[in-house]
Amino acid sequence: MTHNVAFLGLGNMGEAMAANLLKAGHQLTVYNRTASKAAGLKRRGATVATTPAEAVQGAALVFTMVTDDAALEELCLGADGLLPAMPTGAIHASCSTVAPDTNRRLAAAHARQGSSLVATPVFGKPDVAAAATLWLAMAGEAGSRRKLKPVLQALGQGVHEFGDDPGAANVVKLCGNFMLGAAIEAMAEAFTLAQKSGLDREQVYQFFTATLFNNPIYKGYGKLVAERHYQPVGAAPAIIRKDMRLVLDEARTHLVPMPFANILHDHLSTTVAKGEKVDWAGFAERVTDGAGL
Amino acid sequence: MTHNVAFLGLGNMGEAMAANLLKAGHQLTVYNRTASKAAGLKRRGATVATTPAEAVQGAALVFTMVTDDAALEELCLGADGLLPAMPTGAIHASCSTVAPDTNRRLAAAHARQGSSLVATPVFGKPDVAAAATLWLAMAGEAGSRRKLKPVLQALGQGVHEFGDDPGAANVVKLCGNFMLGAAIEAMAEAFTLAQKSGLDREQVYQFFTATLFNNPIYKGYGKLVAERHYQPVGAAPAIIRKDMRLVLDEARTHLVPMPFANILHDHLSTTVAKGEKVDWAGFAERVTDGAGL
Amino acid sequence: MTHNVAFLGLGNMGEAMAANLLKAGHQLTVYNRTASKAAGLKRRGATVATTPAEAVQGAALVFTMVTDDAALEELCLGADGLLPAMPTGAIHASCSTVAPDTNRRLAAAHARQGSSLVATPVFGKPDVAAAATLWLAMAGEAGSRRKLKPVLQALGQGVHEFGDDPGAANVVKLCGNFMLGAAIEAMAEAFTLAQKSGLDREQVYQFFTATLFNNPIYKGYGKLVAERHYQPVGAAPAIIRKDMRLVLDEARTHLVPMPFANILHDHLSTTVAKGEKVDWAGFAERVTDGAGL
Amino acid sequence: MTHNVAFLGLGNMGEAMAANLLKAGHQLTVYNRTASKAAGLKRRGATVATTPAEAVQGAALVFTMVTDDAALEELCLGADGLLPAMPTGAIHASCSTVAPDTNRRLAAAHARQGSSLVATPVFGKPDVAAAATLWLAMAGEAGSRRKLKPVLQALGQGVHEFGDDPGAANVVKLCGNFMLGAAIEAMAEAFTLAQKSGLDREQVYQFFTATLFNNPIYKGYGKLVAERHYQPVGAAPAIIRKDMRLVLDEARTHLVPMPFANILHDHLSTTVAKGEKVDWAGFAERVTDGAGL
Repeated sequence: MTHNVAFLGLGNMGEAMAANLLKAGHQLTVYNRTASKAAGLKRRGATVATTPAEAVQGAALVFTMVTDDAALEELCLGADGLLPAMPTGAIHASCSTVAPDTNRRLAAAHARQGSSLVATPVFGKPDVAAAATLWLAMAGEAGSRRKLKPVLQALGQGVHEFGDDPGAANVVKLCGNFMLGAAIEAMAEAFTLAQKSGLDREQVYQFFTATLFNNPIYKGYGKLVAERHYQPVGAAPAIIRKDMRLVLDEARTHLVPMPFANILHDHLSTTVAKGEKVDWAGFAERVTDGAGL
Repeated sequence: MTHNVAFLGLGNMGEAMAANLLKAGHQLTVYNRTASKAAGLKRRGATVATTPAEAVQGAALVFTMVTDDAALEELCLGADGLLPAMPTGAIHASCSTVAPDTNRRLAAAHARQGSSLVATPVFGKPDVAAAATLWLAMAGEAGSRRKLKPVLQALGQGVHEFGDDPGAANVVKLCGNFMLGAAIEAMAEAFTLAQKSGLDREQVYQFFTATLFNNPIYKGYGKLVAERHYQPVGAAPAIIRKDMRLVLDEARTHLVPMPFANILHDHLSTTVAKGEKVDWAGFAERVTDGAGL
Repeated sequence: MTHNVAFLGLGNMGEAMAANLLKAGHQLTVYNRTASKAAGLKRRGATVATTPAEAVQGAALVFTMVTDDAALEELCLGADGLLPAMPTGAIHASCSTVAPDTNRRLAAAHARQGSSLVATPVFGKPDVAAAATLWLAMAGEAGSRRKLKPVLQALGQGVHEFGDDPGAANVVKLCGNFMLGAAIEAMAEAFTLAQKSGLDREQVYQFFTATLFNNPIYKGYGKLVAERHYQPVGAAPAIIRKDMRLVLDEARTHLVPMPFANILHDHLSTTVAKGEKVDWAGFAERVTDGAGL
Repeated sequence: MTHNVAFLGLGNMGEAMAANLLKAGHQLTVYNRTASKAAGLKRRGATVATTPAEAVQGAALVFTMVTDDAALEELCLGADGLLPAMPTGAIHASCSTVAPDTNRRLAAAHARQGSSLVATPVFGKPDVAAAATLWLAMAGEAGSRRKLKPVLQALGQGVHEFGDDPGAANVVKLCGNFMLGAAIEAMAEAFTLAQKSGLDREQVYQFFTATLFNNPIYKGYGKLVAERHYQPVGAAPAIIRKDMRLVLDEARTHLVPMPFANILHDHLSTTVAKGEKVDWAGFAERVTDGAGL
């Protein structure tokens, strides 16, 4: 079954996801603040809207994928925002990595307008999005989840539900990014210790990812750390630093000391402060730098 | 090809490994400080020696698997120690998790006596050892490695070589235990944050180990962390705390700041100080305890 | 020269400071959300107002001393708030420990109304406030500072100016609370190490505060840490945890990794999570607890 | 009462201390591995010995002040070492910053030879030693302490006794160096936060050392941190890193997690790894560097 679908936010992730919705046969209207990014999707059949409100006219499903909480709130509640324009009964799939409370607050605002918001954060880099092998978490009102789920299948290899609280899916997303960061730091410390003990970083990387940590995450990020080459930029350090800030904000709210998360946040802060133009995994250089390499 | 093989150190790991050498057809002589532990292997055909020196008489290959550096040095150099008794040309496969320098020093002592020591630390718990699916790292003199390698195949699912410096294999082993600890701490922080945010630890565990961290390590240790049940005791906290101490000792020697390793060591120290009778992964309770759970 | 002075916020600190303004001869009107706290000052000659707006009628100077940013904003901008009621030209001395940006924003709002806000955070416990030996930092518009300074002398032993940006004084206040916390943690770690090495905590405390750290801060907080007795409650853990959160918020804004501040914040979070009814210095028990004492 | 005194180890600290013993009227024999360092004391009347054993011939009191445990053990037990040459009843005042167990072991060895060792670590930089205003801690056999104490008065402004266990005085010394390091790190974080918030490091330093932290330690080290100028080198980073290692070694032995000490050790490791030629307080640059300054 296909739908009128709006997709707002066409960064590297959003564009790839929107393309997969087109491929699945939906009628797609897209919107991006910088309009030029919509050109590729237009060629493939999407309609381009000039405001968020215009984009969601007549849409049964609305996807958003933007950088941070402020961008999402602007899209929903700002000038020509999508929220007042959403048709009654329409469902907003909120894919961005934002604070759990942001989706909770926006979901309540949608409910007051007769539409609904389901949090649907995604796991994976732009190439994973393009291959439609993302993992998705989903949380929000049960009826909306039921309708949304079949459409989400087109975007990834699995959709996991976390109940009625839309914030819950974002907690899971934040936990995931934190665990990725921890794996990167662990490899950075281990490979640097091995290197300074006379071993070859690359060989140590090969060993662990062929044995105990034979896993795409360790293989993918570990290669960057082993080679100390953090290009291309999948996600900028400032973006994931924002995610770690959100992790620590949740940890504060719920009184959870997270010593590993503190270290990841600090390493990313330094990477941002130094203006390094690298993928976020480049915070691994804080370890090599600290070791005088 | 089978050999006269001596196996010294019959803890949970050693006994399982020795049994697999028996199964592979080698003539086995065993030694353990507490002799009663040798009973099972004796029934299956092993000869039981009463001193290390006696155990290695006539052996072509000697395996040792003990708790720490002091135990290994005592076995080699103590009263009735194995080193002076090793036949010329015999090879000592040193499987214990010890400091890289310990194996380096002992390897030099073996060389002076006409025998050799190859470091062969193993990755896996007792049940993995029993199933002969350990991963092995190996480093030491090239000729000895060549002879030893086929025999090691009986113990695991792969042997990875790290060159002539026997210490190198132990550096790899220490890096591995550190990375395991980091994965456990990361899950402890993430699951606790999720729980205090209103989610179910178990569901979060299921999600991550079905998606991003679909990996036996995360599944195995993550289950303990999700359920907060750290039984049975695969390795005691004091044992792995010793390993983290060795990691930090290497880090000191080579001037590598390892903030994650500091945290793991401290959490294990507290677990030991409190006298908790749990598997070493029980240090994850430092996180739940810190969050007031 | 005496003035019509309003004082809003009569906690342990506020009441002691207001009493010293009375003693200095000012006509004092006071306000507190829980009116009963004003009884003592009323007996000594203060007028009691029933709303913030009423309190500042006709005042030349307005002092506020409340728990956190939300309380200060409510007092200024809430129902019957003080800001619209402040006479033209009146000066608001904002003594609370709040985010630098809170005072910046409120100062701008005051300026728009024809009054001014000067940030005047204070250093010292309630007994120090009562003895009029506080240290004060002051920042804000120069003319207002000039008028306010002589009045502030009645509250402490010195007023230090930090220029025109009202936020600057709060940055200094946050730095100070952070440095106090660091001194407490340092003593907690040192005294606990000494104790577990067989020494007497008390003797070690006496030694250091008679020699290298012969200083009232080390003596006062160190006594609590040495005796492991954190009564009476000068400031609750939740209050100073809020301060550490503000420190870390500034650190985030300005991209400054502060590893010590992370540890202090986490220790205070655990103390709050466990519901311990102690002075904030009681976070030192995180160290003794971690050592199994 | 004056004595035949031997002084071994004429670094910046040792030379200044030896000079004060000369001034106090003792007959002084000195020894240093690099003999040229003894020239100044020779001119002032000291006898120069060519071996440790020769230096202690006929001495009633023997002082040693060297860089680390290995140097002290070599001086005592190495070729022409002082221990076998010490007269019966002579007292060795062991001033170096070494592991508590090193002095315990050496004290037992002295006792077996009929002499005694009293641990007498000192607090203060070379200029403080020259001014004879060091603080001294003392621990060891009671009778020897009684005889030694009056002589130690010539070196400082106070001698504090910590009982019969010679290791106890070294525990105190290690706690002190740790607390100094913590004060430096706290200032580094606070001043850097203030600077990036738009304040002047120097003014913040002036404020705190005139008020809450009006104390020679904060003034002296704080000046280096405020000015980010870490010259001259009072003690090299590698020396104090060794001290932090000894702190952490004690903490391991006694199962005391010390998160601040971990950070200090790591910052000093990086300073050493980068080869910075600064006073040890220069580890404060890890904070400014992390903030991108």
